[in-house]
Amino acid sequence: MQPAVLTIAGSDSSGGAGIQADLKTFAAHGCYGTSAITALTAQNTTGVQDVFPSSPEFVEKQIKSIVDDIHITAIKTGMLFDTENCRAVVRALKQYYHHSSISSTPDSSRILSPIICDPVCVSTSGHTLLHPSAVDVMINELFPISTLITPNTQEAGLILSQKNLGSGKIDSLESMLLATKNLMVLSSEAVLLKGGHVTAKMADVEGLFSKYGDSGGIRIIRDGLLGENMEILQARKDKDASSSSVDCDLVVDILMEKQGQTTVFVRPRIESSSTHGTGCTLSAAIAANLALGNTLVDAVRAATVYTHVGIETATLIGHGHGPLNHLHSTNRACIPRRTRSNPYPFVSLLIQRTKDIWKAYVEHDFVKQLGRGTLKEECFVHFLKQDYHYLKYYARAYALLAAKSPSFTSIDSAVRTITNILQEINTHKAFCAQFGVSEEELEQTEESRATTAYGAWLIDMGVQGDTTKLLIALLACLLGYGEVGLWLKKQVLQHDSGIVLEGNKYLRWIEDYSGEGYQGAVSIGLEIIEERAAADPPSPARFEEWCEVWKRCTTLEKRFWDMGLELEY
Amino acid sequence: MQPAVLTIAGSDSSGGAGIQADLKTFAAHGCYGTSAITALTAQNTTGVQDVFPSSPEFVEKQIKSIVDDIHITAIKTGMLFDTENCRAVVRALKQYYHHSSISSTPDSSRILSPIICDPVCVSTSGHTLLHPSAVDVMINELFPISTLITPNTQEAGLILSQKNLGSGKIDSLESMLLATKNLMVLSSEAVLLKGGHVTAKMADVEGLFSKYGDSGGIRIIRDGLLGENMEILQARKDKDASSSSVDCDLVVDILMEKQGQTTVFVRPRIESSSTHGTGCTLSAAIAANLALGNTLVDAVRAATVYTHVGIETATLIGHGHGPLNHLHSTNRACIPRRTRSNPYPFVSLLIQRTKDIWKAYVEHDFVKQLGRGTLKEECFVHFLKQDYHYLKYYARAYALLAAKSPSFTSIDSAVRTITNILQEINTHKAFCAQFGVSEEELEQTEESRATTAYGAWLIDMGVQGDTTKLLIALLACLLGYGEVGLWLKKQVLQHDSGIVLEGNKYLRWIEDYSGEGYQGAVSIGLEIIEERAAADPPSPARFEEWCEVWKRCTTLEKRFWDMGLELEY
Repeated sequence: MQPAVLTIAGSDSSGGAGIQADLKTFAAHGCYGTSAITALTAQNTTGVQDVFPSSPEFVEKQIKSIVDDIHITAIKTGMLFDTENCRAVVRALKQYYHHSSISSTPDSSRILSPIICDPVCVSTSGHTLLHPSAVDVMINELFPISTLITPNTQEAGLILSQKNLGSGKIDSLESMLLATKNLMVLSSEAVLLKGGHVTAKMADVEGLFSKYGDSGGIRIIRDGLLGENMEILQARKDKDASSSSVDCDLVVDILMEKQGQTTVFVRPRIESSSTHGTGCTLSAAIAANLALGNTLVDAVRAATVYTHVGIETATLIGHGHGPLNHLHSTNRACIPRRTRSNPYPFVSLLIQRTKDIWKAYVEHDFVKQLGRGTLKEECFVHFLKQDYHYLKYYARAYALLAAKSPSFTSIDSAVRTITNILQEINTHKAFCAQFGVSEEELEQTEESRATTAYGAWLIDMGVQGDTTKLLIALLACLLGYGEVGLWLKKQVLQHDSGIVLEGNKYLRWIEDYSGEGYQGAVSIGLEIIEERAAADPPSPARFEEWCEVWKRCTTLEKRFWDMGLELEY
Repeated sequence: MQPAVLTIAGSDSSGGAGIQADLKTFAAHGCYGTSAITALTAQNTTGVQDVFPSSPEFVEKQIKSIVDDIHITAIKTGMLFDTENCRAVVRALKQYYHHSSISSTPDSSRILSPIICDPVCVSTSGHTLLHPSAVDVMINELFPISTLITPNTQEAGLILSQKNLGSGKIDSLESMLLATKNLMVLSSEAVLLKGGHVTAKMADVEGLFSKYGDSGGIRIIRDGLLGENMEILQARKDKDASSSSVDCDLVVDILMEKQGQTTVFVRPRIESSSTHGTGCTLSAAIAANLALGNTLVDAVRAATVYTHVGIETATLIGHGHGPLNHLHSTNRACIPRRTRSNPYPFVSLLIQRTKDIWKAYVEHDFVKQLGRGTLKEECFVHFLKQDYHYLKYYARAYALLAAKSPSFTSIDSAVRTITNILQEINTHKAFCAQFGVSEEELEQTEESRATTAYGAWLIDMGVQGDTTKLLIALLACLLGYGEVGLWLKKQVLQHDSGIVLEGNKYLRWIEDYSGEGYQGAVSIGLEIIEERAAADPPSPARFEEWCEVWKRCTTLEKRFWDMGLELEY
């Protein structure tokens, strides 16, 4: 389930800021993004070339269309552009508030979904994104219905001087703390003052803490900075860095909550020109984290880390201040989701990727001749004798699987398979007796290279890897014989195939593998491996490793038929 | 590197279609999304409530801002709304074409970046998204500069009748094939006719193929439909489905290329109301796949699969035709990227998540007393004797690691560690001799429960899991002793810690673990595990398993100190 989040902001054509940054951030957090656009910008990493505002009526209409239909879990506002659009947003949000409060508990005196207000006034490149006349509307009407406002020091300075709440420079942790306190007067439930433009040292942070900390209700959260008992990491990081990380430049954000303490977020400052859309991304990430059920402090913390890594892992795009990397926290899946139309995505993929070798295995001449009843008896007997040896390895591999299993369920499942194999061995013996091969002869038969190669490889897979790798190694045998059984039965209907069941001296073998008992085991095996792949989706590297294992065992199976047909040892 | 892709389309406030669907799709494919907005819509899953067009000048300005600054690898167009905006898009793209061709090879007679034109005319809910008067502009001016146009049958009918190229119903594969041929006359390089509104059976597809196939240059690509040698999967799927999948309803898309064959994409039809933005998503996914370097056929195939799974895995959002799930092909990463400011993200996370137990281990009273020189000698001797036994397990665990290793490099690395341990054992013996413990006594000492628990657990981890799991199990010992060494040395500077090196009878032990030799081993171990975690990023389930292993070994380490201090067996 993806919680739906709404951004009310401008559009950045170049994709690094505005609703584009917001939607990318929502997606990266697994949230469903919706957006009401206040203004279009023709913009790129070098600046804002032009602005084309939406009409205030249309801003309201967009918000109405969204909230009328979709349950919104968190809202963020960004660039609102002018007085009228700012008023339109406030009107719509108040209406939504009214709408929500109908079904809410009587004492709920606030908007049900948190509103994060990013008071965007000026772009990084210096372009006005909020008319000076609209600042007052934002302060007087939007702040009071906001859960959190997220000004940077520049915006904070502008807002505070507008309200005569202080005009001093915000250029130190002390002045930031004071500004945050003053901003709290403006009635939002919380203030996050972003200190991106203020450089601090750890000594400053510690100074602030010793002055106001604990008793003053201030706590410090560090990220990307090594904490205590991390000497081994600190020592190595210091060696690589130009200056000791104890003395490195820091970025500090201050969060003050009406009903809560003050939290100071500290992280290393990074030199980067990839900062276009940083503020948009941060407030969007806060909204997404709130929508995911985090507390405000946790949401702000996760959002600052997400934004920080986004800046640090950005690749250069454009010629100015490039965008962040919004995709650093997601990986592409190798196996499609299990769905009704595709219930076996992993096994389908394995078979597709080894189409030729899989076909060479399950439609082997040995199989065809067996189906036609023309297979030389000595070939079948040779196969049976070697299969007897192989099944010993196969049972041992399942025993290894049991030994590696972390739960009684998986131990049980492995041991049931061994029991089945042991029963199969009895049938096998009886079957061999029909063809004049005694148990003694079975035991005394020399093991062929194909048998040893396949059997010992299974054991090796069991030693080398985890249970999933072993399960995949065991899979080509389990599935392949099931496939051969069903394929032969189906071929009987094709008149030109020559496959016949009636009077076929190998009929029992075909019926064994196409029968309910064996096919039941195939179903269980399929289910286990698909569940495993869905529960523990592999990285690309691990997926390739799995495919390689499957390819190897399919090849070894094919060689096993070769051996039967060629009477090889 | 994320290739940049541009969408020129309308904005859908509800986030399921338009540039919002496009940006989500680009992000899901690891592409960098940019967007030029032709019109805002106030829209939700029940319909389009209103449209607020951008001015044609501003459409051009947005495109100019983007292409002037960012290298665009693929372009898609969607809703263009009216004649003027349609013309503006054509003008801008032609200008871009001119701009691009300057630096291109002389014979390059086409636009450098592929342009996918989704000829959006009417919304699913019936709202006009392209004025009738603009259809001609799109056909005459945009199609000829497009790499691919992607109409559905409705749009194809509209376009063809507008150009008097046929007015028959497009309601069968035959008529689809004919319509595709007729659309090719309109000069785009390729046509993808989407058959979402036409229901077909496999017999129809086979009929088409036997009539036109092979010699007629038609090939068929099936997805979500099981191919040959998949009887085991087919049999089980049929059992679950109401009708046999051989006879199930199909969706067929036809791709015709000017210089190439005709490809028919076939997949199962799924019943779903989550189809809002299907066309936008498909064309965006085609553009993304082209930007990633795929051929047109591969791009269309991947895009149809992506869109199909998006519909099938959608959760209900809104009250009408809900949006697709755009995020089905991505997983959230558990470990942050390795960056300059965070070079050890995995180990940092392990330590943070087990902060208390890790601290209890590395700042154990045993360690503190040892650092102060106040540790009872019998405790130290008891520890040394048990450590001797433990190191045997530890060496064996590395031998198991070597046995499980897939490369000479990793075998070498494991064996080097064993060699180091064997050397350490010699130092250990000499050290013990100082405290009056002979080698014989060492060997004869009874193994304590803490030693057996820890040692046998290491071996168990080696048996149970893959090499990464074993490496993590071995990590707390390697890192912890390194941490203790560095921590003790640092504490000497804290006057109140009581830690002293001078005259400390355990000085040599401290110097061993804080010294270059051991710290070098720590560096190698850190690097190996961070590289491993980055190369094979774990699923959430696997990540939790890894954390659990780390927590266990940290706990077992702490118990080992307990044992030393308490003189336990």
